[in-house]
Amino acid sequence: MTAQRPPDLVALTARLVDVPSVSGAEGAIADLIVSELRPQCPPCELTRSGHNVVLRGPHRGDRPSIVLAGHLDTVPPAGNERARLRDDRLYGLGTSDMKSGLAVMIALAKSVDWLQARANLTFVFYDCEEVALERNGLRKLFPEMPLLATADLAILLEPTDANVELGCLGTLNARVTARGRAAHSARPWLGENAILKAVPFLARFAALSPRPVVVGGVEFLETFQITTAEGGRARNVIPDSFAMNVNFRYAPTRTPAEAVAELRSMVPEGFEFDLVDAAPPGVVRSDHPLIEDLVGRFGLARRGKQAWTDVAQFSERGVAAINFGPGVPEQAHQADEFVPIANLTRAFDVLHAFVSVAPAARAAREPA
Amino acid sequence: MTAQRPPDLVALTARLVDVPSVSGAEGAIADLIVSELRPQCPPCELTRSGHNVVLRGPHRGDRPSIVLAGHLDTVPPAGNERARLRDDRLYGLGTSDMKSGLAVMIALAKSVDWLQARANLTFVFYDCEEVALERNGLRKLFPEMPLLATADLAILLEPTDANVELGCLGTLNARVTARGRAAHSARPWLGENAILKAVPFLARFAALSPRPVVVGGVEFLETFQITTAEGGRARNVIPDSFAMNVNFRYAPTRTPAEAVAELRSMVPEGFEFDLVDAAPPGVVRSDHPLIEDLVGRFGLARRGKQAWTDVAQFSERGVAAINFGPGVPEQAHQADEFVPIANLTRAFDVLHAFVSVAPAARAAREPA
Repeated sequence: MTAQRPPDLVALTARLVDVPSVSGAEGAIADLIVSELRPQCPPCELTRSGHNVVLRGPHRGDRPSIVLAGHLDTVPPAGNERARLRDDRLYGLGTSDMKSGLAVMIALAKSVDWLQARANLTFVFYDCEEVALERNGLRKLFPEMPLLATADLAILLEPTDANVELGCLGTLNARVTARGRAAHSARPWLGENAILKAVPFLARFAALSPRPVVVGGVEFLETFQITTAEGGRARNVIPDSFAMNVNFRYAPTRTPAEAVAELRSMVPEGFEFDLVDAAPPGVVRSDHPLIEDLVGRFGLARRGKQAWTDVAQFSERGVAAINFGPGVPEQAHQADEFVPIANLTRAFDVLHAFVSVAPAARAAREPA
Repeated sequence: MTAQRPPDLVALTARLVDVPSVSGAEGAIADLIVSELRPQCPPCELTRSGHNVVLRGPHRGDRPSIVLAGHLDTVPPAGNERARLRDDRLYGLGTSDMKSGLAVMIALAKSVDWLQARANLTFVFYDCEEVALERNGLRKLFPEMPLLATADLAILLEPTDANVELGCLGTLNARVTARGRAAHSARPWLGENAILKAVPFLARFAALSPRPVVVGGVEFLETFQITTAEGGRARNVIPDSFAMNVNFRYAPTRTPAEAVAELRSMVPEGFEFDLVDAAPPGVVRSDHPLIEDLVGRFGLARRGKQAWTDVAQFSERGVAAINFGPGVPEQAHQADEFVPIANLTRAFDVLHAFVSVAPAARAAREPA
C-alpha cells in the first residue's frame, strides 16, 4: 500500500467553508465535491442524487464494507460565513460541524489505495441534516442505495475531536403555543396576554439542569431547551398567541414515543402541543470488532455522542455506526466556531491507517 | 337652520370597514372619503395631502373654530376584515376604532348648515395613528395647516361610547433585548439561552396590576405590557437574542421623560434598552366653556381617556381637545370588535346639535 500525499486539509476545509451551504441550499457545495471526486472514476463510481453525492469504491467479496458519511449543510450564519485562519485554528461556519470532516473524507478518497484497502469503501455526502428528519438527505439515500443498509460499519465524520463517540442522543422538537385574547394594550384587562401567560412554563425550563444517563459505559446528558419563541401582532395590541419551540435531547435508553410523552406531560392545560419532528437515538455499539479495532489500535477515547447524528439512521437499519471526525463537538453551532488544525491531520491519519490496513494484514506483514 | 337628513350611518360605517386601511395602506379609504366629501365644495375647500384629507368649511370671524378629527387606519386584521351586522351591532375591524367615527364625521359634513353653524368647522381625516408617532398623519398636517393649531376646540371622534373622554394616556414603546450566546442545543451549557434569561424580567410584568391615577376629577389606569417578543435562529441552536416590546401607558401627571426613566429602571443590568417611540399624554381640560357646554347641554358623562389619542398633539399646541365618538373604547383592537348601532345616531345627534346651534343662539330663539 502506498498512500498518496494528502491534499492540504486546511485549504480544502477553508474552500468548503467559503461555499455557503445552509440547509436546503447545498447545490454549490455538491458541485464542488463532484468536481473534487470525479478523477477517482474509474475505479470508483460517482452518483449524484439531488444534492447528495456518493462515491463508491471497487467491491471485493473478501473484505468488509465501510461507509464514511458526512452532511453538507450548516445552520444559518451568524457573521461567520468566511473561513479565517488564526493561530492553530481555522474559524468559520461549519469548520467543526462538519466541513473539516468533509475535507478529511475528500482527502481519504483521493489518497486511499482502493484495491488494497481493508474494506469496500463508500463515501456519502448528503444534504439537510441540520433540519427536520423528513428532509434529511441520507434518509432519502437509504432506499436508493441498498448497500448503505448492509454495510458492516458506518463512520459519521461528525465533530468528535478525533475521539470515538458512540450512539447518539435522540432529539425532538415540539411547538408549544400559549393562546390569549387580543385587546388594546391600554386595556390589558379586556384581553389575555399570551406572552405573560407562558411565564410559568418558561420558568420551569429555566430551572432545569442537564440530566445524566449512562449507557454501555458512556454518559449522555438529557436537555430541554426553548430554542425559538415568537408572539404578538403589533406594539399596541395585547398578544393573543405566543409560540415556543421546545427541543428535547434524550438518551438512547428512551424511545421517541416515551420522550414525546414526557415532554407533553410538562405542557400546561390549555396550551397547544404540536410535534414538529422526532429523531430516534443511536444505539451504543461498543462491542463491535471493527469499532474495538479502531479504538484499541489508535488508543482513542470512547464517549457518548452528546448530539443527534445519523448514527441513529444506521442504527435503525441494524448497521453498527459511530461518530469520528476532526471537528470539536463543543464548537458546533457556535458563532465563533473553529476547528483545531492538528485535528485535521490526526483524523486523516487515523482513518487512513484504519481503512488501509486490517490488524491481521498488519500482523502478517510483521517479521516472524 | 335646517338639517339635511343624515345618510344611513350603518351602511356608511360598513362601507368604510370593508375598505382595508391598515396603517400605511390608507390610499383607498382616502379616495372614498374624497369622493364622499367633494359635493360640499363649494362652499367648502377639500385638500388631500398624501393619505390625509381635510375639508374646511367657510370661515366667519364672529364664531369659534372647531376641528373634528379622525384617523383612517386600523391595526392589522384578525379574521375580522368584513363588516357584519348582527342584532343591534355592526362587527368588524375598525367598527369602533374608528370607522364609525369617520362615518359620523362624513354624515355631519353632509348635513351641517355651513353658514349658520355655531362654529367654523374643519374635518380632518388622517393616516397612521396606530403606529409610531413620527408616521402620524395629523402630526404632518400641523405645519401644513396652521388653522389646526389655532382652533378653539378639537374633537377627536375616537371611541368613547358617546361620552366625553378628557385628556389621554401617554404611551411609549421600548425594545428590551436579552442577549445570550449561541450553541448547539444539545450542549446548552456552552451557550446562554437568551429566552430563558429573560424569564425574571417577563415574570415581573406578569405580576403587575394596572395603577390608578386621578387627574382633574377623572381616573386613568397606568399599564405595562409586553406586546411582542421574538427570539431564536433555529430549532437546534441556543437562542442568542430575545427582543421584547414593552408598552407603557402613563397618566397625564407624568412627562414622557419621567415615563422613560421609570421603565428604564425596570430593565436588568446587561439587557439592551432602545426607545422605539414616545407619545406625550393629553391635558385634561374639564373647565373649557365649549367643553362645559357639550357636557352640560347633552348630559354627557366625563371620564379619563384610557388610551393614547391625538388629543395629546392638540394639547402640545395649546388647543383644548377632547374625545367624543360612537365607538366603544373596550372594543378597540379586539378580534370581535363591534359598534352598537344606537351609538351612531346618538353621537351624530349630539354633535349635529352642538356644532349647529350655540347655547346663546338657542336661548335667543326661545319665546320671551
